[in-house]
Amino acid sequence: MFDTLPDVPDIHDPTLAERLQALLDDKTKPLGSLGRLETLAQRLGLILGSEAPLLRDPQLLVCAADHGLAARGVSAYPSDVTWQMVENFLAGGAAVSVLARQHGLALTVVDCGVRRTFAPRPGLVDAKVGWGTADSSEQPAMTVAQCAQALANGVDLVRRLPGNALLLGEMGIGNTSAASLLMSRLTGLDIADCTGAGSGLDADGVARKIALLRQVLQRHANASEPLDALAALGGFEIATLVGAVLQAAAERRVIVVDGFITSAAVLVAVKLRPHVLQRCVFAHRSGERGHALLLAHLRAEPLLDLGLRLGEGSGAALAWPLLVSACAILREMASFSAAGVSRRSASQPA
Amino acid sequence: MFDTLPDVPDIHDPTLAERLQALLDDKTKPLGSLGRLETLAQRLGLILGSEAPLLRDPQLLVCAADHGLAARGVSAYPSDVTWQMVENFLAGGAAVSVLARQHGLALTVVDCGVRRTFAPRPGLVDAKVGWGTADSSEQPAMTVAQCAQALANGVDLVRRLPGNALLLGEMGIGNTSAASLLMSRLTGLDIADCTGAGSGLDADGVARKIALLRQVLQRHANASEPLDALAALGGFEIATLVGAVLQAAAERRVIVVDGFITSAAVLVAVKLRPHVLQRCVFAHRSGERGHALLLAHLRAEPLLDLGLRLGEGSGAALAWPLLVSACAILREMASFSAAGVSRRSASQPA
Repeated sequence: MFDTLPDVPDIHDPTLAERLQALLDDKTKPLGSLGRLETLAQRLGLILGSEAPLLRDPQLLVCAADHGLAARGVSAYPSDVTWQMVENFLAGGAAVSVLARQHGLALTVVDCGVRRTFAPRPGLVDAKVGWGTADSSEQPAMTVAQCAQALANGVDLVRRLPGNALLLGEMGIGNTSAASLLMSRLTGLDIADCTGAGSGLDADGVARKIALLRQVLQRHANASEPLDALAALGGFEIATLVGAVLQAAAERRVIVVDGFITSAAVLVAVKLRPHVLQRCVFAHRSGERGHALLLAHLRAEPLLDLGLRLGEGSGAALAWPLLVSACAILREMASFSAAGVSRRSASQPA
Repeated sequence: MFDTLPDVPDIHDPTLAERLQALLDDKTKPLGSLGRLETLAQRLGLILGSEAPLLRDPQLLVCAADHGLAARGVSAYPSDVTWQMVENFLAGGAAVSVLARQHGLALTVVDCGVRRTFAPRPGLVDAKVGWGTADSSEQPAMTVAQCAQALANGVDLVRRLPGNALLLGEMGIGNTSAASLLMSRLTGLDIADCTGAGSGLDADGVARKIALLRQVLQRHANASEPLDALAALGGFEIATLVGAVLQAAAERRVIVVDGFITSAAVLVAVKLRPHVLQRCVFAHRSGERGHALLLAHLRAEPLLDLGLRLGEGSGAALAWPLLVSACAILREMASFSAAGVSRRSASQPA
């Protein structure tokens, strides 16, 4: 299964990086005064291999699935909310629907394994691998074949999407548990540091969730390789996202990572193909416990820190205009010479 | 002069606040999961007095002027950069020009007192009070009459602008010094805590700047009331912004504060009319030393923290889409009942 995954080569280009920095430094502003927007412009230029990067046809992919573990009370909401929210996405009433409209992001909702049959309609892709995963407290969440199928689905999905930027979103009652499990297993951090309130557990609920997830990790102690861990502990939507991330990275698309669950999918992808990280922009630091540590593990500096903990790709959509701005700075701002603006005083060397 | 300033009444409305919170809590998402975007939606609803706030015709006002103090070496750039950047704003090549275009913000550049005669053209307003302020290390930066004129200009400017949102921007070589002086005088914080590198002084330059500003404060030790401090220590663009902020607040416009200099203008306005703060949204925490402390003094939680230190209104423009999103959430997101989405499990009370 591993052999069929897309190759993700190193795209670091010191010459282009230097050229991008020179261009940014020549824009009519004090050196470095656009802060992290300049770092972002650098990164987008390097991903797209251009001194004048332009984001085209951005695609927001919301992968949805159910989780066997949800039956064990790890979420504040019943599993039915997964399919109900899929309907809400498609009807245009969810947060991510509203934000995608605002920013002109094409929204694709993917049924990766929801416990519901959906009527076909525009914007919905059927990539169902099963009727929710198995309960990982009793057996692996997925069979190896199911995991391979979900990965392949993610690869195929991205191959069929236009554009050069992919925003990641997800929906699945119980999927913060799967993300916490993957994070703990692949980073070596204790499960208590990787586990939070999800959609709104109280303190007792979080304590019970941690105790359960600790048992799940013990049951699957041998699932230490990334794909083994993904199959044993993950979810259909997470595995599909891993495939999507790998394919997007292989095609040098800009990957806009949302919150805790999509970051866990990126973690799996990075463990498989480390250069995936070169293509990622981390949209925000979520309010979900564990996300800050996961970002630190990935050496990621997110753009926003607004206490979001909704998922769906909502944070990725909110950060999107910053990416557009970073490209616009490179493409449209005047240089000192072109604008006839004086440089620093001679008495004040840089 | 004080008597002619706009009145800014208390607009707190507990009934509307409660109703806005109920609406947000009924949206299809876990309680509070949109984090600071929900706080922002609350604030915008309260400012505009609406359960379904809609931002109309946003106006970005860039006030520019020169500073006599600049001759004392407080900036890394020569004073000529002020007029050169005004030309750059109008030609569309500056950062704020690019960002205003991206977000559909109407850009108005105001000559509040630049040492240059500009040819009239669309987008430029002549509200020149003088050819740069006097050197505040030798005399008050403005006469009382000049300060009153600049304030009145700001009031008039906003009266003539359409829309219900005002984004603040500025340009003026030397104006971080004026902002630091006002901050120190009106907050009581030591000038060293209020002073940073501005457009890029080195450590020695900052030390010299602090020493000079300390002398300026001593020379104007009696200028302790807000308007006296503004005249003695401020700038034409800052005084114009104070007037603009007061008028915008009186009209219940949303005021989007940019970085250090516009925050200093808001500080003066708040000392004159405390309820101004109810109308403000702070766009970002600047990389300029002093801004974090000034925001803390104003009990402001900025939206972005990207190490920006450019001014011009660039940070306000970058944060703008978050305000649009916050309104869209209130206006367009479905409620639980309308979308047919289940609420929390009974076993997991809030």
